[in-house]
Amino acid sequence: MPTIKLKAFTLLERVRTQSPVVHHLTNWVTIYDCAQVVKVLGASPVMAHAREEVEEMARLAAALVLNIGTLTMEMVEAMKLAAQSANAEGIPVILDVCGAGATSLRDRKCFELLDEVRIDLIKGNASEMARISGAPVRTKGVDAAPVALDLEEVALSLALRRKCTVVITGPEDLVVDGSRRFVVKNGHPLMSRVVGTGCMAASVIGAFAAVEPDLALAAAAGLICFNVAGELAAELSPGPGAFKVKLFDCLDALDEPTLAARRRVSG
Amino acid sequence: MPTIKLKAFTLLERVRTQSPVVHHLTNWVTIYDCAQVVKVLGASPVMAHAREEVEEMARLAAALVLNIGTLTMEMVEAMKLAAQSANAEGIPVILDVCGAGATSLRDRKCFELLDEVRIDLIKGNASEMARISGAPVRTKGVDAAPVALDLEEVALSLALRRKCTVVITGPEDLVVDGSRRFVVKNGHPLMSRVVGTGCMAASVIGAFAAVEPDLALAAAAGLICFNVAGELAAELSPGPGAFKVKLFDCLDALDEPTLAARRRVSG
Amino acid sequence: MPTIKLKAFTLLERVRTQSPVVHHLTNWVTIYDCAQVVKVLGASPVMAHAREEVEEMARLAAALVLNIGTLTMEMVEAMKLAAQSANAEGIPVILDVCGAGATSLRDRKCFELLDEVRIDLIKGNASEMARISGAPVRTKGVDAAPVALDLEEVALSLALRRKCTVVITGPEDLVVDGSRRFVVKNGHPLMSRVVGTGCMAASVIGAFAAVEPDLALAAAAGLICFNVAGELAAELSPGPGAFKVKLFDCLDALDEPTLAARRRVSG
Repeated sequence: MPTIKLKAFTLLERVRTQSPVVHHLTNWVTIYDCAQVVKVLGASPVMAHAREEVEEMARLAAALVLNIGTLTMEMVEAMKLAAQSANAEGIPVILDVCGAGATSLRDRKCFELLDEVRIDLIKGNASEMARISGAPVRTKGVDAAPVALDLEEVALSLALRRKCTVVITGPEDLVVDGSRRFVVKNGHPLMSRVVGTGCMAASVIGAFAAVEPDLALAAAAGLICFNVAGELAAELSPGPGAFKVKLFDCLDALDEPTLAARRRVSG
Repeated sequence: MPTIKLKAFTLLERVRTQSPVVHHLTNWVTIYDCAQVVKVLGASPVMAHAREEVEEMARLAAALVLNIGTLTMEMVEAMKLAAQSANAEGIPVILDVCGAGATSLRDRKCFELLDEVRIDLIKGNASEMARISGAPVRTKGVDAAPVALDLEEVALSLALRRKCTVVITGPEDLVVDGSRRFVVKNGHPLMSRVVGTGCMAASVIGAFAAVEPDLALAAAAGLICFNVAGELAAELSPGPGAFKVKLFDCLDALDEPTLAARRRVSG
Repeated sequence: MPTIKLKAFTLLERVRTQSPVVHHLTNWVTIYDCAQVVKVLGASPVMAHAREEVEEMARLAAALVLNIGTLTMEMVEAMKLAAQSANAEGIPVILDVCGAGATSLRDRKCFELLDEVRIDLIKGNASEMARISGAPVRTKGVDAAPVALDLEEVALSLALRRKCTVVITGPEDLVVDGSRRFVVKNGHPLMSRVVGTGCMAASVIGAFAAVEPDLALAAAAGLICFNVAGELAAELSPGPGAFKVKLFDCLDALDEPTLAARRRVSG
């Protein structure tokens, strides 16, 4: 816990100072928000999905974020090329399994990605991640469906089997690798009323993973920052429209005293 | 009229309570806003266009919204697959004929969709819908061009010929099926100064169609809610930027007394 | 200079009055903002990229804006078709070389476009434009990298070689054709903290090019308007979220006295 308390702002400052390039192959719904949240953190987002350039673009980057929210066959092939390139360079690869559990295509393509390239961190909501762990659950489109499973067990077994860091988002966010577990309790219900907060969380994790090789620490720190900004924005907002505007402003203005006073994490 | 007065809020509450999945194959310009307006209403948007999953995704949904704003050949083929799947399950299909009348591709693909699958509701602006009804009019890109036709006749003939509900949007929105006609007079000129309000209107109709099988009633109720929120947002906004933020907040906060005091509909 | 002082508002009024159609083939990240900024100016944006309709859509338009931000092979082929159609009709073609210098695909496709169709105005940031002028510089994704070159020389040599107008954006925006040079000094650092301001600048130039055949004048006038709106928005904004909302409102409300008091341009 003291580690996390310390690290969240330290890592945020590292993002702001180093301004790492974060390469995304993501969905067409929230692509702007993914780019903008990375920009607001002080990093440099780039979105590129042509198979002819993804390998080269991934090599320019300090982290690669894949999100299957509006996947096509071509997009997943480009994701594999980008990830192989990132793997070869030791660049961390984050996979947001958006909508896993909704259709068999999404499940199959997630498993292909996990089997064929090295994914360093998998992120999804409860039903998406339960599905990726092998449970026969159904996701409600891209919104989480209730899951009658112990999420910590889901996360741990997935982390061990896939040898990666696992993030399950929800009212509390769970970050697990083979040996550690963090629960980030910050956040606000209004965040789930706005399309894109889940995708942005993965992009935030990508920006932090770009500056910190310990991915569990990077993910927990990123989620603390993003969720504290969400709390601040919610307190200033009459509804989901204003909330999204203020989310960017609050993340941009986030400072150490605010993080220290607000962070709620156990691990 | 009493029916509509009653139904607008009743149906909005049904959307909020049932939180139906609304599947979209839409354009890349307003895809976020289409998802967000559905989310703000309390429903669950999902955007998916890969031909390999659209049939399965459509079956998960309670309504399917098609919008040809940035159509490609592949997208229209995926739309047909999704619509066939929705047709087989009795899920209502809404088609926004965005840009019909601007290019022959748009006209041809709209006619193909109307001929090859069951479209339950067609929605467009005056020149788009005049073109779909067969008139040789030209649309100004995706903005309505003046039409020297009686729009009620256009709507009625189209509704009868295509055996569907017809919505023609404009300063007043017209909702027609073979036997009834509603004119929704709510709305504000600022709505036409913001890209995406037209597309969002179709998504709102989709969310209401997901909870009410009488599609003329669903469309009129959805448009009343959306346009009243537009009025409220316009009154609070110095310009189109603020307006869009407040549109989401006003729709989120919309309550029965406000709807009762504001709704202007004849039928 | 007096010409520019006079022209910026004159041209803005012409955009507002004529409401020209501005056809875009652009990227999926900022496609909404490109459309919305054109709409807020009073013009009529249309986004269409299917090869089967781009030639016809381009003919409907008064300007064509190409942006390679998320290019694919298919998109660039469609851009060529659209540009050939615009060329044949005398419609000005603006190319935003977004991310040139980041990957060899982007460089190669920019050169193909410049070689195979007539581009009337090329726009990019310092490292993008240096790369397009032939210098072996590297762009940091889509963010400008420092360039150890005289940008005025880069712009002039490119303008002469490609026989077009050249815009290099940055803390000061440089507009150059074979015989003239304008430096637009308006703007605010917050603009570079928001994804999409660069792409929007190209769309604004497109809207002004749609009403003014002298493209250097059109570009300088458009950039003055956009950057003055940026200054006004920044003064009203606590951060990048609010800034973007207010950018649209300030551009919408822009009037002659404000422009006269604010414009800072040399030429």
